[in-house]
Amino acid sequence: MINVAVLGYGTVGSGVVELLFKNNRLFASKTGQPVAVKYILDIRSFPGDRYESLLVRDIETVLRDPEINVVVETIGGAGVAYEFTRRALQAGKNVVTSNKELVNEKGPELLALARENGVRYLFEASVGGGIPVILPMMSGLGANEIHRIVGILNGTTNYILTKMKNDGMSFEDALGRAQQFGYAEANPSADIDGLDTCRKLCILASLSFGKYVHADRVRPEGIRGVTPELMTLAEQQGYRIKLIGSAQRLPDGIVEMFVGPAAVPASHPLANIEDVFNGILVSGDATGDVLFYGKGAGKMPTASAVCSDIIECSKPLCESILWDVTDNDFVRSPAPGRFEYLEGTNIPIVMSI
Amino acid sequence: MINVAVLGYGTVGSGVVELLFKNNRLFASKTGQPVAVKYILDIRSFPGDRYESLLVRDIETVLRDPEINVVVETIGGAGVAYEFTRRALQAGKNVVTSNKELVNEKGPELLALARENGVRYLFEASVGGGIPVILPMMSGLGANEIHRIVGILNGTTNYILTKMKNDGMSFEDALGRAQQFGYAEANPSADIDGLDTCRKLCILASLSFGKYVHADRVRPEGIRGVTPELMTLAEQQGYRIKLIGSAQRLPDGIVEMFVGPAAVPASHPLANIEDVFNGILVSGDATGDVLFYGKGAGKMPTASAVCSDIIECSKPLCESILWDVTDNDFVRSPAPGRFEYLEGTNIPIVMSI
Repeated sequence: MINVAVLGYGTVGSGVVELLFKNNRLFASKTGQPVAVKYILDIRSFPGDRYESLLVRDIETVLRDPEINVVVETIGGAGVAYEFTRRALQAGKNVVTSNKELVNEKGPELLALARENGVRYLFEASVGGGIPVILPMMSGLGANEIHRIVGILNGTTNYILTKMKNDGMSFEDALGRAQQFGYAEANPSADIDGLDTCRKLCILASLSFGKYVHADRVRPEGIRGVTPELMTLAEQQGYRIKLIGSAQRLPDGIVEMFVGPAAVPASHPLANIEDVFNGILVSGDATGDVLFYGKGAGKMPTASAVCSDIIECSKPLCESILWDVTDNDFVRSPAPGRFEYLEGTNIPIVMSI
Repeated sequence: MINVAVLGYGTVGSGVVELLFKNNRLFASKTGQPVAVKYILDIRSFPGDRYESLLVRDIETVLRDPEINVVVETIGGAGVAYEFTRRALQAGKNVVTSNKELVNEKGPELLALARENGVRYLFEASVGGGIPVILPMMSGLGANEIHRIVGILNGTTNYILTKMKNDGMSFEDALGRAQQFGYAEANPSADIDGLDTCRKLCILASLSFGKYVHADRVRPEGIRGVTPELMTLAEQQGYRIKLIGSAQRLPDGIVEMFVGPAAVPASHPLANIEDVFNGILVSGDATGDVLFYGKGAGKMPTASAVCSDIIECSKPLCESILWDVTDNDFVRSPAPGRFEYLEGTNIPIVMSI
């Protein structure tokens, strides 16, 4: 029996609960045992909610219950989420999360703690929403040395850029539209200033290169400076403007990381990724370029990734990821002028990044 | 220590040997133990070959050696490859293959045999070449009910169709070009008549729907009838002609399968997949559409998938795939006239399939 506690009953947390009930038979057949939501932890009340009876307010209820084997952390941030994750791992419970901030901020410590306690800390949902990317990159491309990762990793900014291109909107109007549809938060800074893309890229880079990369090693640039004029100029030269995150291992072992607007030729696999979709191109030495594409955010896509990780927790534990923190000097930002640029701008062309 | 025997020293087999030597340190770090090629089995001689000393001619050498824990079958076909696979599984050895014909022909028996003997029969390389698709579909999308799979699954025909579209070549000229570059075999029927696409689609459908689908349940149509005129007509209406394999689970549980040329709108994720690249779109109930894209064939991409499966063999065995063969009546071909068609043709439009 797999008993799950969901911490945080917001958009993603409620999606996880919904999916665990909806596809319950599928989970039982995939794990060989019943899977049930035993607790939902939140400090808020949800009177009349279908699963109100599962709500608890005290983390001790979860931590002290020996029947709980998987804790889903969808609280977000690196405060209480960090404390609860640490304590759940110490209590010998697997933890599954969509929290990219916490994974990037405290990954090395939490992964080591999971290993010490013989459990997992899994975070497929932290990058690419409903697109399986961490598992296929680590296992499906396991025979490859990964040279490069380049992707559209943030749905909010991709929606804004798509609106600007297709409907000629200004950045401000497109942002307003994104907020209206719930794609952008009231304080949209983490998305539009590139920090969210940067954190996700750092998670992928840490996994691919085996060494921990903290987001503060990279200087992200966001999309506030992208104007309709720039988009038109790009279009005229056969390019589209996308917010790109890229990590490339150079021959000397240095990893060069870039987060910012870039010009993508219309025939490039990332060019036609529109709206809230994400795409991640991974280059392996044997297989070449592989693209993973799908919905990068949203309630049910993110719940899909969280719940797939819950199924993973039912398998025998066989390998622990550890991120080496001893060497922080292998990451650098590209030197100014290092790329090819879109004519008349300082926007780099994606293939030269 | 993982000792590998490679059966069949052709294009894929030699790629596997090359990659196992090239990325040897990576394999050791991923599996926690040394990985070595101990035997290469082939009836041919390779005088002067770098790995000539590993060549053996008698399968008994492989089967009787208790040190061999992984057998790579890259012989192809369902004759001797079938016999050797069966005997290797019975001898308690994991078998990894790129042989779609054998997987589709004898999958239920070989998977059951693997389970009885506590070993694996893995075939990531049988579909999509170097693109991880089976693992992410089964695990990364594990929380989803899969409704539909639609893809470009054959690199040879996609190369031919790309040449016809971009260079205005006739089918015959484009086929000749494909043969000249080694993308098409001297007898290209399995590719151009759709059987290869059909077998790969049947493998994905069997995995997604848990019931075995043999290729003879589907009536594939190939691309011999695609003319430059049809391509122009499609182009004028905003479509591209692609050889599409599609399996869709209808609400009544019936799976409708289609293999044939179809019209793909220019903005569709499969439209820009050119040359020998493949793309597979999988629709899950929670995550929506996810696309996996990359090199669908070739020596090193296919070796990448085989070698990733070798790494999988080093993990604790936790689940066995079994294909139910009791019910063969859940598959049907679409009734004539069931789709929307490209105006003035009998070519279905991909979204209606």
